[in-house]
Amino acid sequence: MHLTVAIDCMGGDHGPHVTVPAALDYLRRTPEVNAILVGQQDAITAELRKLNADAEPHLGVQHASETVNMDEPPAAALRGKKDSSMRVAVNLVKDGTAHACVSAGNTGALMAISRFVLKTLPDIERPAICSVLPTLKGHTYVLDLGANVDCTAEHLLQFGVMGATLVSSVENKEQPSVGLLNIGQEDIKGNEMVKQAAELLHASGLNFYGNVEGDDIYQGTTDVVVCDGFVGNVLLKTSEGLARMLGTYLREEFNRNVLTRLSGVVALPVINAFKRRTDPRRYNGASLLGLRGIVVKSHGAADRFAFRVAIGRAVDEARGGVLNHISERMSVIQEGTA
Amino acid sequence: MHLTVAIDCMGGDHGPHVTVPAALDYLRRTPEVNAILVGQQDAITAELRKLNADAEPHLGVQHASETVNMDEPPAAALRGKKDSSMRVAVNLVKDGTAHACVSAGNTGALMAISRFVLKTLPDIERPAICSVLPTLKGHTYVLDLGANVDCTAEHLLQFGVMGATLVSSVENKEQPSVGLLNIGQEDIKGNEMVKQAAELLHASGLNFYGNVEGDDIYQGTTDVVVCDGFVGNVLLKTSEGLARMLGTYLREEFNRNVLTRLSGVVALPVINAFKRRTDPRRYNGASLLGLRGIVVKSHGAADRFAFRVAIGRAVDEARGGVLNHISERMSVIQEGTA
Repeated sequence: MHLTVAIDCMGGDHGPHVTVPAALDYLRRTPEVNAILVGQQDAITAELRKLNADAEPHLGVQHASETVNMDEPPAAALRGKKDSSMRVAVNLVKDGTAHACVSAGNTGALMAISRFVLKTLPDIERPAICSVLPTLKGHTYVLDLGANVDCTAEHLLQFGVMGATLVSSVENKEQPSVGLLNIGQEDIKGNEMVKQAAELLHASGLNFYGNVEGDDIYQGTTDVVVCDGFVGNVLLKTSEGLARMLGTYLREEFNRNVLTRLSGVVALPVINAFKRRTDPRRYNGASLLGLRGIVVKSHGAADRFAFRVAIGRAVDEARGGVLNHISERMSVIQEGTA
Repeated sequence: MHLTVAIDCMGGDHGPHVTVPAALDYLRRTPEVNAILVGQQDAITAELRKLNADAEPHLGVQHASETVNMDEPPAAALRGKKDSSMRVAVNLVKDGTAHACVSAGNTGALMAISRFVLKTLPDIERPAICSVLPTLKGHTYVLDLGANVDCTAEHLLQFGVMGATLVSSVENKEQPSVGLLNIGQEDIKGNEMVKQAAELLHASGLNFYGNVEGDDIYQGTTDVVVCDGFVGNVLLKTSEGLARMLGTYLREEFNRNVLTRLSGVVALPVINAFKRRTDPRRYNGASLLGLRGIVVKSHGAADRFAFRVAIGRAVDEARGGVLNHISERMSVIQEGTA
């Protein structure tokens, strides 16, 4: 079956200059997928013309007269801009025209619009933001990364189900392991909410590993790490900040004088291999999980390469049938507790 | 005035092999400080003899017959081992013999014993664990790192006061800036507790910067970052894990083949400079703040260099008079709200 992905071409820091070429790159590598480019028709067709892609097969353009700004309050975007490129892309998923959508726009607005238009899956109270992070063993899926700041134990259980289902749908892992992010000191092991969540996860039928600590994330201890959105957002941004600081330090040391600069030239292939391996663009694309439709959020600053990765993630989720799997798994759990 | 520091020589992964030489290193560089080495007399004097330091001036030994194990439940250590080296070191602070103490032992036990023996300062409900982290601009103090997992807004205010007072006492900064760790999305900015804490911090008379996000920590946006202990512990361990992963990646890339190994030899001075700059041993020593006595916790795996750094931190806090300053500041705030 040909899958169709709707692409909000106006979102992100760069808009159509990045999103349109990224979409073309993706389509040319993946001819069995159709794309609908959503946004200002003029801007999109101008980009397509520049790239000699006016008559690209598997490509459609859907005009949308408005654009959600990166700093626009979500409520304003939701109520005030019914014809935004973001809203139209999500609508295409809602009405079944597209199997998934991608946007590099404002996260809060995308979540608000997606929730309003698509609604949540049965038995899922809150959608969560799930990203992939690199680890020593490969990669791991972490959720929630900031959609929910006051979570209950039930929410964490639902995050566990959604994360595990995403991994099994997209990566063909039968029983992905799920870790619950906690802290390690003996007599104060976690707050009440996390303790309850551990009990629910134990009883869920998931491959629940138990508690993991912050360093287990990059260690790759489990396939999925579950935490509340406040903690997840802090750990993600802290990681970004630390990686940036270490990169700056390394650059500064290589730039210290003529000798160190020369050694930098000699070490360039190694440094480049290291950079490729830790390139965050390879992990671009956060899934808004728990909705009745697949929505992937690209980093706002994504370049052509990174945005293409996010498109791929959305298509992979549609191909893996992640939504049906989440619903099946949740209904089994609900029966178990009923 | 000669300051005296009590050193739990039995704590940590290495015990007296590391703690005794580290203490000697410190005393030889800082002749105006006295040290009391606490623990098994035989083990300590054997180490001193090895180091030709039997008759070291400014050095005393205080025998303690028991040792708290690294994995011992804090309650057991507190109730069952009244003559542990950890307990005796804290007692020396309590009775005024020492101005501060240092231990590389079990964090939970050290906190439980310190709280029981020393009690908290007036108007401080909970002690917090505060560490220094490197930043792009220098370093920042982060608390709480795991002592308290269910914090109220008032606790966060107290952490802010303690952190700011520590910085002004130890670093002679008049009005250190205090940031409140939060997450950045527009309509869900933080949970209720953090919102209330922001109001309290605004009204506190501290140099309150406002909300900071995870990446602000290593950016060095503020002198102090305040968060609850669950979040702080996760961000600290996540950072450790990420730094370890990146270090491993870099090493692997340099070890890939003969050519990359050769370039590693050429780049060695740069790599070593980078390692020195990011060496976590330079930041060893977490302060247990809010007690009626100065207690510093060294990393359990600390080596001689790292443990010496932790001793220095304890002495600097005693010299800066941090406890009196916290009490003064808290009583001003209490009067303001009364």
